[in-house]
Amino acid sequence: MTTQTMRFMSDNTATACPEMLAALAAANHGLEVAYGDDRWTQRLDAALGGFFGAPVRAFAVATGTAANALALATLTPPYGAIFAHHEAHIASDECGAPAFYSGGAQLMLLEGEHAKLSAATLAASLEAHPVSVHTVQPAALSVSQASELGAAYRPEELVELCRVAHAHGLKVHMDGARFANALCFLGCHPSDVTWRAGIDVLSFGATKNGALAAEAVVFFDPSLVRDFELRRKRAGHLLSKSRFVAAQLLAYLEHDLWRRNAMRANGFARRIGAAAGQRLLGPVEANEVFVRLGADGKARLRAAGFEFYDWGAESAGLARLVAAWDQNEAHVEALCAALGALPVS
Amino acid sequence: MTTQTMRFMSDNTATACPEMLAALAAANHGLEVAYGDDRWTQRLDAALGGFFGAPVRAFAVATGTAANALALATLTPPYGAIFAHHEAHIASDECGAPAFYSGGAQLMLLEGEHAKLSAATLAASLEAHPVSVHTVQPAALSVSQASELGAAYRPEELVELCRVAHAHGLKVHMDGARFANALCFLGCHPSDVTWRAGIDVLSFGATKNGALAAEAVVFFDPSLVRDFELRRKRAGHLLSKSRFVAAQLLAYLEHDLWRRNAMRANGFARRIGAAAGQRLLGPVEANEVFVRLGADGKARLRAAGFEFYDWGAESAGLARLVAAWDQNEAHVEALCAALGALPVS
Amino acid sequence: MTTQTMRFMSDNTATACPEMLAALAAANHGLEVAYGDDRWTQRLDAALGGFFGAPVRAFAVATGTAANALALATLTPPYGAIFAHHEAHIASDECGAPAFYSGGAQLMLLEGEHAKLSAATLAASLEAHPVSVHTVQPAALSVSQASELGAAYRPEELVELCRVAHAHGLKVHMDGARFANALCFLGCHPSDVTWRAGIDVLSFGATKNGALAAEAVVFFDPSLVRDFELRRKRAGHLLSKSRFVAAQLLAYLEHDLWRRNAMRANGFARRIGAAAGQRLLGPVEANEVFVRLGADGKARLRAAGFEFYDWGAESAGLARLVAAWDQNEAHVEALCAALGALPVS
Amino acid sequence: MTTQTMRFMSDNTATACPEMLAALAAANHGLEVAYGDDRWTQRLDAALGGFFGAPVRAFAVATGTAANALALATLTPPYGAIFAHHEAHIASDECGAPAFYSGGAQLMLLEGEHAKLSAATLAASLEAHPVSVHTVQPAALSVSQASELGAAYRPEELVELCRVAHAHGLKVHMDGARFANALCFLGCHPSDVTWRAGIDVLSFGATKNGALAAEAVVFFDPSLVRDFELRRKRAGHLLSKSRFVAAQLLAYLEHDLWRRNAMRANGFARRIGAAAGQRLLGPVEANEVFVRLGADGKARLRAAGFEFYDWGAESAGLARLVAAWDQNEAHVEALCAALGALPVS
Repeated sequence: MTTQTMRFMSDNTATACPEMLAALAAANHGLEVAYGDDRWTQRLDAALGGFFGAPVRAFAVATGTAANALALATLTPPYGAIFAHHEAHIASDECGAPAFYSGGAQLMLLEGEHAKLSAATLAASLEAHPVSVHTVQPAALSVSQASELGAAYRPEELVELCRVAHAHGLKVHMDGARFANALCFLGCHPSDVTWRAGIDVLSFGATKNGALAAEAVVFFDPSLVRDFELRRKRAGHLLSKSRFVAAQLLAYLEHDLWRRNAMRANGFARRIGAAAGQRLLGPVEANEVFVRLGADGKARLRAAGFEFYDWGAESAGLARLVAAWDQNEAHVEALCAALGALPVS
Repeated sequence: MTTQTMRFMSDNTATACPEMLAALAAANHGLEVAYGDDRWTQRLDAALGGFFGAPVRAFAVATGTAANALALATLTPPYGAIFAHHEAHIASDECGAPAFYSGGAQLMLLEGEHAKLSAATLAASLEAHPVSVHTVQPAALSVSQASELGAAYRPEELVELCRVAHAHGLKVHMDGARFANALCFLGCHPSDVTWRAGIDVLSFGATKNGALAAEAVVFFDPSLVRDFELRRKRAGHLLSKSRFVAAQLLAYLEHDLWRRNAMRANGFARRIGAAAGQRLLGPVEANEVFVRLGADGKARLRAAGFEFYDWGAESAGLARLVAAWDQNEAHVEALCAALGALPVS
Repeated sequence: MTTQTMRFMSDNTATACPEMLAALAAANHGLEVAYGDDRWTQRLDAALGGFFGAPVRAFAVATGTAANALALATLTPPYGAIFAHHEAHIASDECGAPAFYSGGAQLMLLEGEHAKLSAATLAASLEAHPVSVHTVQPAALSVSQASELGAAYRPEELVELCRVAHAHGLKVHMDGARFANALCFLGCHPSDVTWRAGIDVLSFGATKNGALAAEAVVFFDPSLVRDFELRRKRAGHLLSKSRFVAAQLLAYLEHDLWRRNAMRANGFARRIGAAAGQRLLGPVEANEVFVRLGADGKARLRAAGFEFYDWGAESAGLARLVAAWDQNEAHVEALCAALGALPVS
Repeated sequence: MTTQTMRFMSDNTATACPEMLAALAAANHGLEVAYGDDRWTQRLDAALGGFFGAPVRAFAVATGTAANALALATLTPPYGAIFAHHEAHIASDECGAPAFYSGGAQLMLLEGEHAKLSAATLAASLEAHPVSVHTVQPAALSVSQASELGAAYRPEELVELCRVAHAHGLKVHMDGARFANALCFLGCHPSDVTWRAGIDVLSFGATKNGALAAEAVVFFDPSLVRDFELRRKRAGHLLSKSRFVAAQLLAYLEHDLWRRNAMRANGFARRIGAAAGQRLLGPVEANEVFVRLGADGKARLRAAGFEFYDWGAESAGLARLVAAWDQNEAHVEALCAALGALPVS
């Protein structure tokens, strides 16, 4: 008997949701002006502006790394410093993209519970590093919503962070690869955790939540846009047949797919988190669950057919379990049962 | 009465061909390992190896600019020189991408009829610029197949160019954004204008010829691959849901879509070229037609509903007419008629 | 009998002039604040401001390549284009420094007699390359005074060039590695060929004309200064014991060494040029002489003990003869005699 | 009555030692081939090879930032990671130079007592960050001898660090801005803390210890040299009149000035350290003394005429007192007395 594979590795393993694929197919007729001057891409500003309740300039790209690195490169000179949590995706999982795109900006990596930063930590770091011609120049703060450990910043936390950042001349970027998941958990309006809180630029992710490959860089401060457009082209991230990415994003927003998909994934994660109990490393506020399994626990789950990533060094015994938008519910139930059946460590 | 728009601006305005869209949809089931470890991407090497009749390593990216710049960055140090035609896409239409990706490599731009380089011109340029610690170091040659003016390199021309390049320590890159179009014109085997001629790396384009967004970087020299993979990730060009790009490329190759689509576009261009007669700037050897129209000729065509780009400065009176794979045949006939009806200038 | 070596390779082979060495020694007492806050460096703005008859901000660096590349990097974004003569030092003898410092700006290399650019050529090039998001963005013009072929721009030529440049949004940089030589030839006021003509930033060279290692980057537009200072530090060109460079520059200006040294070198070059007669490639307007010698002529001169560089490919038969500020007059006379004695080719 | 200024800010405030200035003046005769092909520069390899007891390739540059950043850029690809102490000069005082020179390498900053790293900390960090295509690639370790807090690595500490580094494929760079000071404290042979311990490249500083402006990059692994030379030129750090820097370094080595000057500075620092007593932050193993003074202590010393830098944020109450090679002994005595007279905090 073959053990069935049940995959909880990443929301990147998911399919595209049928509605977004249908929207893409629906855009596939007629010769259309290339490089973003098509009718789909031209509607992005309005669609995202409606979502956020504010005028925005929005640009489609195909990956989250591109969105983050391009956004950050518009915020910092080559001699700038980007403050971020030491677990941030930009620090550990993008092969140094922010430094590549910015021409060498330096990451200033900070600590914080659940991979979130606090205003106090940021203020202390800024105060501890006096600025002169010998130092990199503080230029940007990057926060992840949800955080790399699946926690969500509350609006008031972001207000405080942005206040400290702006007071020191930093612009603020949000990595929203799982923005919809955080938003669904918080239940607030999208503006509450973006421009109303002080966010200047958002990487608005859709790929992990049901798109084929579609992310938007959303500028709440339009002065940065011209520089962005040239950097995007120069990096090969201006898609010639832009309509196919734009169509995905429009469907995502206009049919509330962002909410439906994220709610489903979040719900699964919550159930997994409940089953994990004491093994949880932190609260489950999006679609990721971080657990302490030990070598034995990991081996048992894997033997039972569950696929997932170690979190950090293999020897640490930690694991990340991700629920995708299209996760098989029976697999979730099986995982919950398996977690419950692990011997107490 | 409204004039109908007939678009000959670019093959980037085209739709995706139904078979490639269907292949993409067919790949959309089940959780699949991300970042290129899926079953579709894993077949790319074999599919492209079969096409070229040689072992290759191939990598999917979403845009031609990314393919070119990433390929070139693997061939040149930051202090390197890249030799190319002064009309090359990498020199004039990628916003400086090769310099960005390579960390500042310098373009050495050469002249040549129909935007093709000759071995003699390359040799003369290399001889005229003695190399020392004060100069950039010759590192790569980049040729475009078809050229930026729609001409195709013959196998023996490439053999000579690569011989000169390799003798001086240069690696050779081919920008194949319209590789299928050139190949169909030449009627030779893909190997004859690539690895057999000495090409080290090829940007194998599919987007202009029927894909949604799919290009492959094909290495005939596998020693460069590890560096490439890290650069691709760092640039945000490693797609998480890689299966969707790979599926397009597999369909393109396995169902001979590359040939069918390119033959159709080439045929249209040939007809337009015949209609243009004396106005032609050069031979029509792919799907692009370059013509001298003058201000008056351009105005007349545009008034009749034809859309196309000026070539070079507006005042030069030149135009580019591109036939896409899905071009409406009636529009082509109308364009041929309109060209024939222009007053002799 | 040994043939005596008589060196006409470069003004870089020269000694430092005794007055500048003495000034350096005179600065060598007492603990002095580092990194440019010393009393010598603090006087640079005033000294160069007096020289140019205008308020300036001036910064010392140790090499001409650093001066040029840092100046240009303040004028152009990474996606910018720098227009220059194809023989310019920044294009051919600085190992790609402008691209390194700017993060990949592209050189747009133009033709022009005696390695000088004309306003008409610049205007034509700008007109021939329409700007869009797909192209590099015209950002700077760099002119060399004296030019790479030893010719001097007249004030009115610079006025025209700067007018065209500024009208297109370009800033203008002057590479003044041999600024003093050009100025002595022209006999005009320093302002006439700099800020009055429209130059925004000048690399003011002293090393070739008597310093040990001292160049100044002179900003006539102070808005660019903060960026420059950070780039200089980041590049390792902010000298800790800055007083020793500043002291050289102050002596150079305050004791009119720039004029005395350049007049001497220019005079020698003029004599060599007169002796070269028909072999001259162009006018002698600084301290360099470019001659057509042929393989035979070069061999004869070298056999007689003269050292000099080929100009371009060895096979071209061209040579560059440079008179240094401290050139031995007897060697100059010997060279003149040897040139006169060459068989007519 | 005016209070006399007594400066303990930095060894960069020092004069050049007379013997090195004399050597520079002695090199100032005759036309000499430029860019390092002169007789002085040509002797550098042998002189430094003799000093270290091993064949080396050595290159002169004018600043320590240039030495460090150029050395590191030869060791790491743009997607590389450089491990260093979080207080390292390259991390905090070079305006991001390593990222600029390497094309964006990422600093991995570690903790360690007295600004020294331990092999265990390095090993733990490497183990905690599994490497994949998504991460920067560990490429180099940089250690400072003496450390940024004035402590000296023992030979056996370096052996262990280099063993861990090499086992993980990292090359090892040593920032030796105060190498002579550390060496004099340790009393060992130069090889014991460099190539015998596993160091691959050393920034060998002389400027802080008596030169005008002279540092050498010393390669114990010659395979890296060609890349270095091109990077140096491209960065504007190849001095045309190289003899003047080489002459300083030759005198420094051949007349044992490195030892004499460092011994004097170290001796002063030891006396200051003894006077500081309980206020010391760590051992005094070079020419720097780090003390806890509090706001009141700092104010009292400054009122008495002593100049020095805060260490870290002003509010932390810490200070750095540096003894230069030419420090006035009476000032040292006065400082010791003033420290002794401070009220117990």
